[in-house]
Amino acid sequence: MKKLDLTDNRNMSMLMDFYELTMSNAYLLDGVGEKIAYFDMFFRKVPEQGGYAIMAGLEQVIEYIEGLRFDEEDIEYLKGLDIFNDKFLNYLSNFRFTGSIYAVPEGTLIFPNEPIITVKAPVIEAQLLETMILLTVNHQSLIATKTSRICRSADGRSVLEFGARRAQGYDAAIHGARAAYVGGADGTATTIVGEALGIPVSGTMAHSWIQFYEDEYKAFKKYAEYYPDNCTLLVDTYSVLKSGIPNAIRVAKEVLEPMGKRLKGVRLDSGDMAYLSIKARKMLDEAGLIDCKIVASNSLDEYTITSLFNQGAKIDVFGVGERLITSKSAPVFGGVYKLVAVEEDGDIIPRIKISENVEKVSNPGYKKVYRFYDKESNKFLADVITMADEVINVEEDYVIFDPVFTWKKKTLKNFYVKELQEPIFIDGKLVYDIPSLDEIKAHAKEQLANTWDEIKRFENPHTYYVDLSKKLWDVKNELIEKLKENK
Amino acid sequence: MKKLDLTDNRNMSMLMDFYELTMSNAYLLDGVGEKIAYFDMFFRKVPEQGGYAIMAGLEQVIEYIEGLRFDEEDIEYLKGLDIFNDKFLNYLSNFRFTGSIYAVPEGTLIFPNEPIITVKAPVIEAQLLETMILLTVNHQSLIATKTSRICRSADGRSVLEFGARRAQGYDAAIHGARAAYVGGADGTATTIVGEALGIPVSGTMAHSWIQFYEDEYKAFKKYAEYYPDNCTLLVDTYSVLKSGIPNAIRVAKEVLEPMGKRLKGVRLDSGDMAYLSIKARKMLDEAGLIDCKIVASNSLDEYTITSLFNQGAKIDVFGVGERLITSKSAPVFGGVYKLVAVEEDGDIIPRIKISENVEKVSNPGYKKVYRFYDKESNKFLADVITMADEVINVEEDYVIFDPVFTWKKKTLKNFYVKELQEPIFIDGKLVYDIPSLDEIKAHAKEQLANTWDEIKRFENPHTYYVDLSKKLWDVKNELIEKLKENK
Repeated sequence: MKKLDLTDNRNMSMLMDFYELTMSNAYLLDGVGEKIAYFDMFFRKVPEQGGYAIMAGLEQVIEYIEGLRFDEEDIEYLKGLDIFNDKFLNYLSNFRFTGSIYAVPEGTLIFPNEPIITVKAPVIEAQLLETMILLTVNHQSLIATKTSRICRSADGRSVLEFGARRAQGYDAAIHGARAAYVGGADGTATTIVGEALGIPVSGTMAHSWIQFYEDEYKAFKKYAEYYPDNCTLLVDTYSVLKSGIPNAIRVAKEVLEPMGKRLKGVRLDSGDMAYLSIKARKMLDEAGLIDCKIVASNSLDEYTITSLFNQGAKIDVFGVGERLITSKSAPVFGGVYKLVAVEEDGDIIPRIKISENVEKVSNPGYKKVYRFYDKESNKFLADVITMADEVINVEEDYVIFDPVFTWKKKTLKNFYVKELQEPIFIDGKLVYDIPSLDEIKAHAKEQLANTWDEIKRFENPHTYYVDLSKKLWDVKNELIEKLKENK
Repeated sequence: MKKLDLTDNRNMSMLMDFYELTMSNAYLLDGVGEKIAYFDMFFRKVPEQGGYAIMAGLEQVIEYIEGLRFDEEDIEYLKGLDIFNDKFLNYLSNFRFTGSIYAVPEGTLIFPNEPIITVKAPVIEAQLLETMILLTVNHQSLIATKTSRICRSADGRSVLEFGARRAQGYDAAIHGARAAYVGGADGTATTIVGEALGIPVSGTMAHSWIQFYEDEYKAFKKYAEYYPDNCTLLVDTYSVLKSGIPNAIRVAKEVLEPMGKRLKGVRLDSGDMAYLSIKARKMLDEAGLIDCKIVASNSLDEYTITSLFNQGAKIDVFGVGERLITSKSAPVFGGVYKLVAVEEDGDIIPRIKISENVEKVSNPGYKKVYRFYDKESNKFLADVITMADEVINVEEDYVIFDPVFTWKKKTLKNFYVKELQEPIFIDGKLVYDIPSLDEIKAHAKEQLANTWDEIKRFENPHTYYVDLSKKLWDVKNELIEKLKENK
């Protein structure tokens, strides 16, 4: 497989916000660089008022951390800025990550405010990971989540990722296609992704093929002769109904059928997709081409696909481009990375980030997340964030309460729990068995199947419960009170 | 400088839509693969109803084409798909680009429908470049254009790119920062961009620094002691006005001034930026810190910055993150790559792509673009797309007319012209002297200075004239008529 990793071929170690280096330099000089700090990555809102997000990008985070080194060039560059102490530059040149990382596996459904990645490490090490963890997981979770929405709107029909030309850079095309596959896409048009990641690739012809031969029928005929087993014809270069579909039918009859082959599909790439697909379906069916698929590929996303079905469109395959690969209607996944605790003399002291907005106050401390499952249906009931030393007793009922509106309570019964985070690195050593991309995709599918429809719908989804344990809630409130007193 | 190129370290040759390969295989088998084809890259609309866009990404396109090779792994992968003829695979393994490319230099203002890149090459070669040309130029032009808008709203104040953590992948962070610099940003927070591209980097502290020390004053004091010459303090961890600004002032007085140093700045990263900046400015001024800059960095773009100034905000530096690096309010630059001509027996035969929408019909033929400048003011008057063999006589008045509403005419007088496209590759050889990033940035600045304010404003900008020569217009209409007759 083609190497696209972040280790030897392309070292991204310096892809960090400069403040991570200025802070780290000062931590080192201050003699506190080895103090153990805890950072959480979490997000506050699902994009597009959605009910769920899908975790993605962990494999690339692991690659990055495994490859994290500062080479001579890096050190020379930093030295030249005349800001950093030689002691720190020396520290960097011997840098290896020695901390521990716990993370939610890729493909898992994730919800606001729960720690999806927790880093426990000497403060400098934990700080230096910030940008790449956020960048990687924000990007891929965004695209996986968007694709999941698009696939849900396609209601079982095939969705193919077609967006490379409109992606925001090369990684956006490649890792975007990866995330799209996790989120439910069946394949991609981007060749390198097939080669590097094993995702199925597909593609037939551009308008240029038709224009090159000028005569549409001739262009279709040529294509059918060279690809009789895999012939999908682009029918909108001149006029879909007057020229494209009639020529496609003629090729099916005159070129393919005599060879014992069938026309696999026609592709619509412009115009009124609802009207054209209905008319095209009728023409194809009347010609006996009932097995010929209609592929649509113009300005599609979950909104247009839903609208197309509402109009009775007859589309079998959706090729989705720019609106998927950029998550156009909401192109940012707002994950943040916050300090939540510092070890002092062996004790883990929680830290908090206050805000005027009570919902934006971070959850302090070293924590865990438990997902509660209904014993009978295996559906998710709620997630509960606890302090790391808490254990849920599944033999007893468990009362959850809203962390903001605490009078809102609910008793969970007849459940089992799973911890959401898994150990990834322990003391610098990778302990995680990285799943294959197909395993991740299957995991996402299973997770979605275990989620109530009310959470998954587009319009006003039910807010999934992510509550705090009583102990965590108390810790948080004590810290808030303490800070208020100091003002 | 750090190697981030697209040649040896990271070969992106297979980053192409699969249909480019299926078409190319069939062209080769059909014996037409060596026929010379002409493709144009152009775009139809400026994002966000803007009046202009800025060309960016050409340097990376050049790197890509220079490095374009298919290695053994690539060939093996393609062979394994059982779709391609051995003759084609053999062709690919010996592939070198042998064609010619003409392009608008980076930093140039570009407008809808004019060819910004023209490729003349054997049809297979031209076709295989499609995805990477579009991906690269769409992405960087998007970000350069967005940044130009943001910088215009900042009205001469400094704009820094802070978006890596929300970028859509690593290249989006790196090349996005590059494009932002072209578009007017003064620097970036992303360290690798400084190292690899020489763009100024900056950054001071995150909230984690304050939280780590718990006591905000202590955290500020430590920072001031380690960075007395470059001390910008993040003042919103607890409360900007009750704690952040008072502590910053105390550090300025108690730590920095005794060392003969000044507090360089304070940074606001949340809350009501208009209110807080006005109050903070007053407090700083009253403490004699009139030279202390106020940096703002929360959810900024041209809209919020304009609104902040309308509210009287006192901000000196804008750190712009996710809304710049993803061009959040319009995250796609819709450049397309269309076949416009094919050589037949030495003649260049124009090709057209028809559409139901008259404005979407492509401009056929091998063409040039001339920019008309006013002799006195050096301001741009109009761009005119001509056939490649046309020469503008600057001694005579020139009548331009709207290509859709042809009765709209205007006579240009007292002008000089420049060709927009420059030769980049001729017969496979790079003939272009790639400018430095600072030269590109300066070029963009000069281009903007030569553009009327009416084109640059955000609200209903005047549409810049991009008209067709009479000859091109005739060629186009003949082709349209001919296609209509064939229906």
